[in-house]
Amino acid sequence: MNELLIVGSVALDSVRTPFGEVTEALGGSATYASYAASFFAPEVRLVGVVGEDFPKEHIGLLESRGIHMEGLQVAKGKTFRWAGAYEYDLNEAHTLATHLNVFETFKPQIPDSYRKSDFVFLANIDPELQLSVLDQVEKPKLVACDTMNLWIKMKPDALKRVLKRVDFLFINDGEARQFANTPSLVKAGRMLESWGPKYVVIKKGEHGALLFGNNSFFSAPAFPLEEVYDPTGAGDTFAGGFFGYVAKQGGDISEPNLRRAVVFGTAMASFTVEKFSLERLKTLTDEQLSARVRMLKELSHFDTP
Amino acid sequence: MNELLIVGSVALDSVRTPFGEVTEALGGSATYASYAASFFAPEVRLVGVVGEDFPKEHIGLLESRGIHMEGLQVAKGKTFRWAGAYEYDLNEAHTLATHLNVFETFKPQIPDSYRKSDFVFLANIDPELQLSVLDQVEKPKLVACDTMNLWIKMKPDALKRVLKRVDFLFINDGEARQFANTPSLVKAGRMLESWGPKYVVIKKGEHGALLFGNNSFFSAPAFPLEEVYDPTGAGDTFAGGFFGYVAKQGGDISEPNLRRAVVFGTAMASFTVEKFSLERLKTLTDEQLSARVRMLKELSHFDTP
Repeated sequence: MNELLIVGSVALDSVRTPFGEVTEALGGSATYASYAASFFAPEVRLVGVVGEDFPKEHIGLLESRGIHMEGLQVAKGKTFRWAGAYEYDLNEAHTLATHLNVFETFKPQIPDSYRKSDFVFLANIDPELQLSVLDQVEKPKLVACDTMNLWIKMKPDALKRVLKRVDFLFINDGEARQFANTPSLVKAGRMLESWGPKYVVIKKGEHGALLFGNNSFFSAPAFPLEEVYDPTGAGDTFAGGFFGYVAKQGGDISEPNLRRAVVFGTAMASFTVEKFSLERLKTLTDEQLSARVRMLKELSHFDTP
Repeated sequence: MNELLIVGSVALDSVRTPFGEVTEALGGSATYASYAASFFAPEVRLVGVVGEDFPKEHIGLLESRGIHMEGLQVAKGKTFRWAGAYEYDLNEAHTLATHLNVFETFKPQIPDSYRKSDFVFLANIDPELQLSVLDQVEKPKLVACDTMNLWIKMKPDALKRVLKRVDFLFINDGEARQFANTPSLVKAGRMLESWGPKYVVIKKGEHGALLFGNNSFFSAPAFPLEEVYDPTGAGDTFAGGFFGYVAKQGGDISEPNLRRAVVFGTAMASFTVEKFSLERLKTLTDEQLSARVRMLKELSHFDTP
């Protein structure tokens, strides 16, 4: 009941920020999303691919959170590697190198035992692969997807086919403007919603997040961090936390519950960016997370006269 | 009691946006701020300068809102003119022409009857002029100031002297990062606060506003407009609305009241940008304003579990 299937990338990231650098650390959209979702969802099932060189301790780390790893294929060759750098303002990742390696020929194979997952999150991968996942699952209660600027540019039609089959789209502000071809985020959110998803969540980093859907609109604050150490994985963490929260509540898509899901995703992502890779999430407790949710409530509350 | 003195520019603006253009329309920091404040403050007193060519109907418009205009000097020469254009994304004004005219030799003269104003708002003008105003007033309850990138670059020391003498600083996000020399708005807000003001309000346009001060932090949403017609004057409107609201409440700087002031300023500014100049504010009713405040509450509200 309420299993959450997450399909996406598992990677080794080398990242440089103004605060330091890390080499071949655990990363990838499915990794961050699964780890975040494991704080909420009753059962998280990861599907992805790594190479023979993928360190076993990373698998152990994810298993220690109760994440089911049977869907992680180990293919001949090397694990997907990404190298990037952030400048002073940390707003944009500059890709230094992308080695797809085993990811280049990745065809998601959903294990038979996963086909009846109640919740399916298509983390950021090629939209054609996202479609192939949807062809393999049976009547999920809710489906969500994420994407990135590359697919908006290279495969807009495949991505639009994905949108027709999902309940939630997660997208960042720059990508939303790009895809909807308008500078107005409000217009972009409504336009993306009209292309298929019941709900659209626009992630704005330091400016919070916007939730569009069902004739409603929610503006969530960001958690006020003085320093963002490394923004890598923040969006994947947000989405995994959000959708894990929805799965935990059995797919409750009432407006109050979805707003809480946005806030839990926000709180979760605020921890990811405090250290490299999953370092901060590794030591995160439920109590620390709840405290940050309460702070988000406190810092955005006001009474009308 | 609770008079609000506002000193700043009164101008004729020529503005071009993707939606249209307007020539020599009423503008200026003191104009927008006074008009907005007149919705709240018991008595608004404007001090500024115009030339002999300034249309009488503009003065009539401000007087029709109950704004006291005895402090508006009419000097020999022409009124300050600004011409600017906004591109597609409306985020940044491109100045096409600035004709200071009578503003070039403007020395604010605070009429004797205004020297005991309870509230003083130094709208965006040369910080040396802002200092000269502070030398002319007697023990105001609260002082606020606004500024712009030009003064941060040209007169940072004078501006820092102003900050030591004010209770509130209004500044936009780009200027806050510029002045505090950090990409982090949270850090910038705290740093600016440490330079003197009890409270710092960072205006983020489409992303809302942040209030720092008194060991507290408030994140306010923006009002979700699909189209921003002309952003000119939004920041001045926000500040005038905010400080007018504080003046109306007799200078109540409790956290709940200041948060409400941010929200009223936000709602007020959301009307200004819907049309050129003060066109939308002219027809604004208290009920329309209150409705937007309630919508801001509704769209940002969430319950924690």
